[in-house]
Amino acid sequence: MIDTFKTLERADFDSRHPLTQVLDAARFNADGLMPAIAQQHDTGEVLMMAWMNREALMETLRTGRVCYWSRSRGKLWRKGESSGQQQHLRAAALDCDGDTLLLQVDQTGPACHSGRRSCFYVALEGNEARIASAPLIDPDTLYGKA
Amino acid sequence: MIDTFKTLERADFDSRHPLTQVLDAARFNADGLMPAIAQQHDTGEVLMMAWMNREALMETLRTGRVCYWSRSRGKLWRKGESSGQQQHLRAAALDCDGDTLLLQVDQTGPACHSGRRSCFYVALEGNEARIASAPLIDPDTLYGKA
Repeated sequence: MIDTFKTLERADFDSRHPLTQVLDAARFNADGLMPAIAQQHDTGEVLMMAWMNREALMETLRTGRVCYWSRSRGKLWRKGESSGQQQHLRAAALDCDGDTLLLQVDQTGPACHSGRRSCFYVALEGNEARIASAPLIDPDTLYGKA
Repeated sequence: MIDTFKTLERADFDSRHPLTQVLDAARFNADGLMPAIAQQHDTGEVLMMAWMNREALMETLRTGRVCYWSRSRGKLWRKGESSGQQQHLRAAALDCDGDTLLLQVDQTGPACHSGRRSCFYVALEGNEARIASAPLIDPDTLYGKA
């Protein structure tokens, strides 16, 4: 069997390959999911990590609006459908062995359900964890509970 | 049971919490692993995603040299031990639900085993995948096979 990602390692810079062939070789896990990292396209801030199945990825590529798979709800999750804080896709890339996605996005407001811009706010410093950012929006407001 | 990460969502900005308590509540998966995203600290480039168990994380925090868990080799993997391309830790953070790590690193040379700076070089564009970067170093040289 040809290992598509091994072949791509040696492929010419800027060469193009059929998307279907690449996605057929992509390594979704036993649950059919792959981690997807969302990075704000202009500032470089890493906003969150969530999961996509092939359907979520195809919808995201087709519509330009980021759609994940919610493991807790067991269904497609169009980011912002309840909070209003959408992610619009600017670019997507698979990694060298085809098991992780990096999404360049334009995030409206906070990406995090806590109301913070980024989910990565629990800084590990020495023998302590420090809360490294404050909410932009009260999360009770974000989900219409206020 | 108190959900530590739910409590941290509402904790004051800049407040500090015992590292052990936070790591006890962190959500490693069924294999005891957690995804760790490595980002070059000054340029913001996302370099790679790999996995850490608690031991790898503690070693990384203690030594400042990034250590992952190699799923293929089933052992600790001190990044750069065979390629020479080390990662030095600048900062580490957990996300809001304690199941993903973001590492700010200083990466020597290429992070990717293909010789590229970043692993995320298979750009998904329309109906094609495009090779979006070229190796900095011939991978045969990188692993001493040349």
